[in-house]
Amino acid sequence: MGWWTLRAASGALLVSLAITLPTASAQDWLSPEKRCPSPYGADDERGAANLQTAESIAAAAKLIRDGKMYELGKVLDRNIPMSPGRSFVLNLQRTSGPNGRNQQGGNEETVFTELGQMGTQFDGLAHQQLGPHLYNCVEAEKVARRGGFTKLGVEKAGSFFARGVLLDIAALKGVDMLPDDYMITVADLEAAMKQANVEVRKGDAVLIRTGWGRLWTVDNARFIKGEPGIGLEAAEFLVKRNVMMVGADNWAVEVRPYPDKDLFLPVHGYLLNANGVYLIENLDLEALAHDKAFEFAFIMEPLKLRGGTGSSVAPIAVR
Amino acid sequence: MGWWTLRAASGALLVSLAITLPTASAQDWLSPEKRCPSPYGADDERGAANLQTAESIAAAAKLIRDGKMYELGKVLDRNIPMSPGRSFVLNLQRTSGPNGRNQQGGNEETVFTELGQMGTQFDGLAHQQLGPHLYNCVEAEKVARRGGFTKLGVEKAGSFFARGVLLDIAALKGVDMLPDDYMITVADLEAAMKQANVEVRKGDAVLIRTGWGRLWTVDNARFIKGEPGIGLEAAEFLVKRNVMMVGADNWAVEVRPYPDKDLFLPVHGYLLNANGVYLIENLDLEALAHDKAFEFAFIMEPLKLRGGTGSSVAPIAVR
Amino acid sequence: MGWWTLRAASGALLVSLAITLPTASAQDWLSPEKRCPSPYGADDERGAANLQTAESIAAAAKLIRDGKMYELGKVLDRNIPMSPGRSFVLNLQRTSGPNGRNQQGGNEETVFTELGQMGTQFDGLAHQQLGPHLYNCVEAEKVARRGGFTKLGVEKAGSFFARGVLLDIAALKGVDMLPDDYMITVADLEAAMKQANVEVRKGDAVLIRTGWGRLWTVDNARFIKGEPGIGLEAAEFLVKRNVMMVGADNWAVEVRPYPDKDLFLPVHGYLLNANGVYLIENLDLEALAHDKAFEFAFIMEPLKLRGGTGSSVAPIAVR
Amino acid sequence: MGWWTLRAASGALLVSLAITLPTASAQDWLSPEKRCPSPYGADDERGAANLQTAESIAAAAKLIRDGKMYELGKVLDRNIPMSPGRSFVLNLQRTSGPNGRNQQGGNEETVFTELGQMGTQFDGLAHQQLGPHLYNCVEAEKVARRGGFTKLGVEKAGSFFARGVLLDIAALKGVDMLPDDYMITVADLEAAMKQANVEVRKGDAVLIRTGWGRLWTVDNARFIKGEPGIGLEAAEFLVKRNVMMVGADNWAVEVRPYPDKDLFLPVHGYLLNANGVYLIENLDLEALAHDKAFEFAFIMEPLKLRGGTGSSVAPIAVR
Repeated sequence: MGWWTLRAASGALLVSLAITLPTASAQDWLSPEKRCPSPYGADDERGAANLQTAESIAAAAKLIRDGKMYELGKVLDRNIPMSPGRSFVLNLQRTSGPNGRNQQGGNEETVFTELGQMGTQFDGLAHQQLGPHLYNCVEAEKVARRGGFTKLGVEKAGSFFARGVLLDIAALKGVDMLPDDYMITVADLEAAMKQANVEVRKGDAVLIRTGWGRLWTVDNARFIKGEPGIGLEAAEFLVKRNVMMVGADNWAVEVRPYPDKDLFLPVHGYLLNANGVYLIENLDLEALAHDKAFEFAFIMEPLKLRGGTGSSVAPIAVR
Repeated sequence: MGWWTLRAASGALLVSLAITLPTASAQDWLSPEKRCPSPYGADDERGAANLQTAESIAAAAKLIRDGKMYELGKVLDRNIPMSPGRSFVLNLQRTSGPNGRNQQGGNEETVFTELGQMGTQFDGLAHQQLGPHLYNCVEAEKVARRGGFTKLGVEKAGSFFARGVLLDIAALKGVDMLPDDYMITVADLEAAMKQANVEVRKGDAVLIRTGWGRLWTVDNARFIKGEPGIGLEAAEFLVKRNVMMVGADNWAVEVRPYPDKDLFLPVHGYLLNANGVYLIENLDLEALAHDKAFEFAFIMEPLKLRGGTGSSVAPIAVR
Repeated sequence: MGWWTLRAASGALLVSLAITLPTASAQDWLSPEKRCPSPYGADDERGAANLQTAESIAAAAKLIRDGKMYELGKVLDRNIPMSPGRSFVLNLQRTSGPNGRNQQGGNEETVFTELGQMGTQFDGLAHQQLGPHLYNCVEAEKVARRGGFTKLGVEKAGSFFARGVLLDIAALKGVDMLPDDYMITVADLEAAMKQANVEVRKGDAVLIRTGWGRLWTVDNARFIKGEPGIGLEAAEFLVKRNVMMVGADNWAVEVRPYPDKDLFLPVHGYLLNANGVYLIENLDLEALAHDKAFEFAFIMEPLKLRGGTGSSVAPIAVR
Repeated sequence: MGWWTLRAASGALLVSLAITLPTASAQDWLSPEKRCPSPYGADDERGAANLQTAESIAAAAKLIRDGKMYELGKVLDRNIPMSPGRSFVLNLQRTSGPNGRNQQGGNEETVFTELGQMGTQFDGLAHQQLGPHLYNCVEAEKVARRGGFTKLGVEKAGSFFARGVLLDIAALKGVDMLPDDYMITVADLEAAMKQANVEVRKGDAVLIRTGWGRLWTVDNARFIKGEPGIGLEAAEFLVKRNVMMVGADNWAVEVRPYPDKDLFLPVHGYLLNANGVYLIENLDLEALAHDKAFEFAFIMEPLKLRGGTGSSVAPIAVR
């Protein structure tokens, strides 16, 4: 376990990580004894968010030179792809009025949706289980309440301001879109890094482009049915570099269905549960790819849903 | 009207504003003829968001030196203050599992709420009406659909990365909290600027601290009943300086009830409808105030609710 | 206008209607002056529900001889036909447990839907407007609140126990299903009455079978696109006989689209607004038709949604 | 086990029960072996609803003499008592219009609520568990889906038309309301039967008045905190008489908290799970009590929520 100073209660990050953290390997992750306690401490509820420090933020800010901003979040409406059983319903609500000499009128909207897991979305540490366990071997049964988790809620993760790196695998392969069930390899990641002339470093937000996002609202059925993405080997490669989060332009980051039929969404469990590394799904990476913007400041502000499993987000890249 | 180049469709901002924009004065705002078309064009749907440029973003990024981040968003749960008729309901949803050798299990949450107007919130250009009109004299009836507005939806506003300025009126007055119905004056703003040694500039996010946020979840009834805040004079002072948005640690930015009983939420109409200047409500400004952090990068990523009137947000300040 | 005694506040019906009520004719219904006040009084909020009396209930009960019950309500789930913009979402909610020696566990469900207008549904007197007016020329603007109507809410209608009559137009025509845009004529109603050897009387619930219900969950798109049903002439025929409500196995009772293109859902307005006659939609009339059950006790218990426009219902016929 | 004919698929009830069914006694109910399979068959999903037959319906209809109807359902709005974590939110929705020469306008409402367990409510056979088991020892895990139970859903119960009996325990004791934690005894039931000169018979809906309903919307906190009601002895007394359902004017039928602290909601489990006897909660029994109406036709039409645990209802009594 590495050494570091603790995060102050105020939300200001004082953590300093001088050495690389040991991480749960792809061999160890199914064993609670080997993956727990988290290297961030047995009581930790923030996982790799601990890698974010004032220093890392200041360094990421220095990547902003021209001030060009890229919107990485998809627009939310009822026509976007969603897993069976999920919903997105927005109803405009005209509130009372006209009032006063200014004839004031108010409008708002009610929304019913799986807010933690809708559209471009940030997966928090209570989203997935390995057997009975959330991240850090917290027993789900002990912390699950109807109104949210009493531990590991997304409000604990905080906001993110990190170095972002784009690994454009679709461009590397010279295709618009990777094949439906393509599993991105370690060699692919290395080649993309080389082609982009970027390294993956501790605390990074690594964004992987598969081209799958082109199906968004164009062919939702195919978009959801399966997807190209990373497997456990590529995930371990990133974990060993101590990234803070992994995002992609598909709906689960990882290849679906998983080639090893005995495993179900294993990259989710390996990253979130075993290593506290966050996921971001359904990113819009087209403009970044178009500009060959491989390194940037990545900023994401999840809604602070108390006890939530994640948050719909609208992150940005700036450089 | 000033001159500027148009925003490119890609989302990259190419606007360059060489001169100060004429703005709707507090005398003119109730007249559609005088406040419309918007100085940003008769078809504009983004209001003061047009003030954000690559240059302004790059300049704001330069305010980040130490990398200290401040979370300005409140945690969302069913116990927060909300106007009568609004709701926030989160229900944890255990999705199917365990699956596979990894015994994968999934959790998510359904949320029912007025998502555009809940908790720390960003008010968009379809939120308020002056008579039949939204911002830029768009007739609400023509663009209101059950599932959202076809014009002026919050997804058009985009994300924000701006210079932020804190005007701490409570500290200026030497109180924890301004009195319930205190209307902040132009002199107050000027004194706070002077005390903080900051100017308010074009494109800024101006955050006004009243101390009212101390009542949050402590005395919700009092929090909602009324509040100290700015009036039309202070709003005009800010508009003349071409600010992009005005935020506060109360629920409506403006003083409530308004001293002129013939006017209802007039600062909302004056800022949003007449000038396209955005509002942010229920900010947590305590840590900024504690650190006397008066100038910073302000970053906010509203959810892209198609046709929405606003968005619950979790903005950050970084310096 | 006829004479009658007033309904007691307790909910017990004391109304006695000795003569046939004058009704708004198909010529008069668009004129507020001619259709208002309602024959049930200028303050009436119950319309034709006033036709239900202790005598009419006792008479309807006498139609029950064998005790055979017919379920006329469709099952509610997310796959049923619904108009664009509507939703039905049910999420199972496991509540806390196990508790005690008995290891008690509880289950429930959250439901988000347009509850007044979903599935087999009862249309109340606040559902439709003719210009600014609800039934009895109540101005909608004056009684519409975000949380419901302050007048004419479905909770005022009460429950129904009436003589029910089936007019099986599909069987009359010898088809499984009437053509998509077939408008049922007065002659059709008369022929069906004759064939069934039943009369339509004051206070009746008249159920019209088109066969359209066969498309339910089989071809939802076609089901919703249009439908065979009654027009104004047939509606007037029923109104003149002082029926209490008109139901059908389609989604709007009336033919859609309406042959007179200048009129939109006119039978709704004519029945609900001009005459206070209720509608029931999406009934399952197959078993009644199979048994040639043309006369029966019809019982319907709308949910008492305060200020609601209607209610999803599961009515029964018993004979 | 008794003998009977099976219910026809059409919904018409052909069951004939010539002898009294053996029932799970209060000694046996915690043992799956002793309470299962249900006397209605190992595959049964309807429990005591099987007691309803054409004969029983015809007999109940004969109790209607004067046609006087009693509304037993409470009005639903956001101010009614509800257990922590539950919600009721109705938002009026103005749909598009005005359309056509008739200037048609439409109104409806979205509702978010725990629809199976809100207001006056019918508890179905998937509502409660004894350990892993629903009624008839169905394993909840095997039939619980996000969108509802695949077995034992409330849509299987059907509608009810039964002999209803009022046992007015509050009147028996000469009080407006029984004490907060009063457990109704077998002697109470017998005395109430004697005073009312009614017997409890097979297939009955037995409605027990505690007076607790007087607190409804008057003192919601006290209403929910505890309640007078029946215990296991009284429940067994009713089960032995083969009643179909037990209702009350409190929120759980049974005394709360339960005097035996080792048991949690035991009457729920004993009636629903062990005997398939249904519960109805939050009934309005005041008018029945006022009229000393002890025997009547009881009619209830639960919404057919596929896979639901129950339904908000608005039952009626008629005599």
